[in-house]
Amino acid sequence: STVKIGLIPADGIGREVIPAARTVLESLSDGPKFEFVNLDAGFEYFQKTGTALPQETLDVLKNECNGALFGAVSSPSHKVAGYSSPIVALRKKLDLYANVRPVASVKSPAFPDQRELDMLIIRENTECLYIKSERQEVDPETGLKVAWADRKITEYASKRAGTMAFNMALTRQKLREQKPLEKRFWKQNPRVTIVHKSNVMSVTDGLWRETVRAVKEQNPDKYGGVDMEEQLVDSMVYRMFREPEAFDVVVAPNLYGDIISDGAAALVGSLGVVPSANVGDDFVVGEPVHGSAPDIAGKGIANPIAAIRSAGLLLEHLGHTQQALKMYDAVDAVLAEGKILTPDLGGKSTTTDVVNAVLKNL
Amino acid sequence: STVKIGLIPADGIGREVIPAARTVLESLSDGPKFEFVNLDAGFEYFQKTGTALPQETLDVLKNECNGALFGAVSSPSHKVAGYSSPIVALRKKLDLYANVRPVASVKSPAFPDQRELDMLIIRENTECLYIKSERQEVDPETGLKVAWADRKITEYASKRAGTMAFNMALTRQKLREQKPLEKRFWKQNPRVTIVHKSNVMSVTDGLWRETVRAVKEQNPDKYGGVDMEEQLVDSMVYRMFREPEAFDVVVAPNLYGDIISDGAAALVGSLGVVPSANVGDDFVVGEPVHGSAPDIAGKGIANPIAAIRSAGLLLEHLGHTQQALKMYDAVDAVLAEGKILTPDLGGKSTTTDVVNAVLKNL
Ligand SMILES: CC(C)[C@H](C(=O)O)[C@@H](O)C(=O)O
Ligand SMILES: CC(C)[C@H](C(=O)O)[C@@H](O)C(=O)O
Repeated sequence: STVKIGLIPADGIGREVIPAARTVLESLSDGPKFEFVNLDAGFEYFQKTGTALPQETLDVLKNECNGALFGAVSSPSHKVAGYSSPIVALRKKLDLYANVRPVASVKSPAFPDQRELDMLIIRENTECLYIKSERQEVDPETGLKVAWADRKITEYASKRAGTMAFNMALTRQKLREQKPLEKRFWKQNPRVTIVHKSNVMSVTDGLWRETVRAVKEQNPDKYGGVDMEEQLVDSMVYRMFREPEAFDVVVAPNLYGDIISDGAAALVGSLGVVPSANVGDDFVVGEPVHGSAPDIAGKGIANPIAAIRSAGLLLEHLGHTQQALKMYDAVDAVLAEGKILTPDLGGKSTTTDVVNAVLKNL
Repeated sequence: STVKIGLIPADGIGREVIPAARTVLESLSDGPKFEFVNLDAGFEYFQKTGTALPQETLDVLKNECNGALFGAVSSPSHKVAGYSSPIVALRKKLDLYANVRPVASVKSPAFPDQRELDMLIIRENTECLYIKSERQEVDPETGLKVAWADRKITEYASKRAGTMAFNMALTRQKLREQKPLEKRFWKQNPRVTIVHKSNVMSVTDGLWRETVRAVKEQNPDKYGGVDMEEQLVDSMVYRMFREPEAFDVVVAPNLYGDIISDGAAALVGSLGVVPSANVGDDFVVGEPVHGSAPDIAGKGIANPIAAIRSAGLLLEHLGHTQQALKMYDAVDAVLAEGKILTPDLGGKSTTTDVVNAVLKNL
């Protein structure tokens, strides 16, 4: 069967790493047959056309594609009238309710003092402050501006994200069991850590917390073997840096998930290696966690690893797990060897060098 | 002149570290004359009386005290009807609009691989999601719960926090100039880093960003020598862990400031060493950043350094800078020696041992 993938490089280094990921997908020998279609979006596209996410891109994704790869989007530093982040819109319009972000260290001579960790962050992807319901008024007494944003947390979305977290904890356990014990990083029960700040937001984060807890509590047969713990978001960031090896699956509301995943990326050497998948019931969009990196765009030195791993995640969530594992292993082999690395990892190699090294290990 | 200080140990190790800080204050030979008054608040107090922050505590603080020291408060893991965090309430009721959190590494044989950093986080302390304006409803179509929280950002509060940040950048520069060049950590222009997420919250974080920028832009004579830069909150956490040495003063809305300061604490070895001061125009409350640590409460091994440094910050913001510097130096000497350390720093000493070591260096 053919898998049709929409490619949305968007801005900056997105234009370099998405073609790199495509090359790797095309080189999978026993994978599905791929078809690709290039699609527009991004801040530069907005500057040319007045639209950041054209309707045509959405239509082609919905009507023709099985999944997509999104590159990166430039954020204007000033508010630009009419502009709104296309990736945030895409997540909402395609109902991609969970942002799945694995962050794992790879032993490599290139990072001798790297912390050992292997966590999977599940970030709720459709609500929280990301609903962008904001307004500004002027205080009539003082003449000063007052701005408001709505934070929305629903039982519906919290349950979907929580269910994804517990399911992924079981999936990871199954994959680990295929490895000899000494090669497994995580040797304990699968574990889900729920992040919140219900000591301050007792209603919204209270609802989040209760709903995610209920996923396990109401399904003891299915999830009884998965441990459940909680962390306030501030201590989560603290503990993640003190003992990152203590986390398996971490599930968080949208904004906390955004912050935590960047923090976790710092622990594995570079944002340039951390992938994500925006997952819904009907669609998946792979997306490197890094930004558009205007400072290095066009130089051919962007790290393609996050994008290649994101293509792997895309395959995994489309049901092609074995092909995804092959891609991960090839990337890990390149990192473990530690010779072909882009500058963000302290090396001197180019995007193309890294792609070639991955292909050699495929 | 007498300085009267309200002591509010509150919960857990707050009851051990606040008396420790008091002992150090009382031992300052050429400081002001101190008077102390013990005041109630906390979750345990709530469990006994139904009130987390009694009116009497507020009255005594307002009518009799020059400042206060707050210990730590336990957070119930479930929502408890009628309970609301007393420290959040105190900040609002006394209009303590800036939470000043210095995080600096001290070279010590005890932490051979510690990162070098010396940053000061200014956290807006009265609004953002901390206004606790929340509600829950039931979606009539699905019967599922939907919760909302209001995030409030005002020009008024943003300007006060921003002004504090630029003023502290100048104050730090002045203090550094008293040191020989080779002993100064930060050798560049003073710098203020503004944290926000205006690529998503263009109205609320947009107002925050513009207002803090305007503090410098409208006062070129005063702040022209202070560099200004911006970081999105997710990349702030990433960069803080990749290059913590790149930050001088960091100013952030309430929730981001909460998260960032815990993250920074992880870089200097322990939350047990990071102090804060809740600063308003008329009042200051020193407060260690750590929590009530129920697991070690009552054992006599809580690290008193954050509380002692918070007492120093209290003095500094009451105008007794020289006494504050003496306290900081004494604490730094104990850390630099690296022999008398509590278990959170890998040592075996008690709270009292550390207090005695600080007194010896005073
Ligand atoms: C670009 C931005 C809107 C986005 C987000 O905050 O979700 C990015 O930081 C991410 O993590 O994917
Ligand atoms: C206890 C809690 C309400 C508090 C906060 O979030 O402000 C604490 O984390 C802090 O940083 O002082």
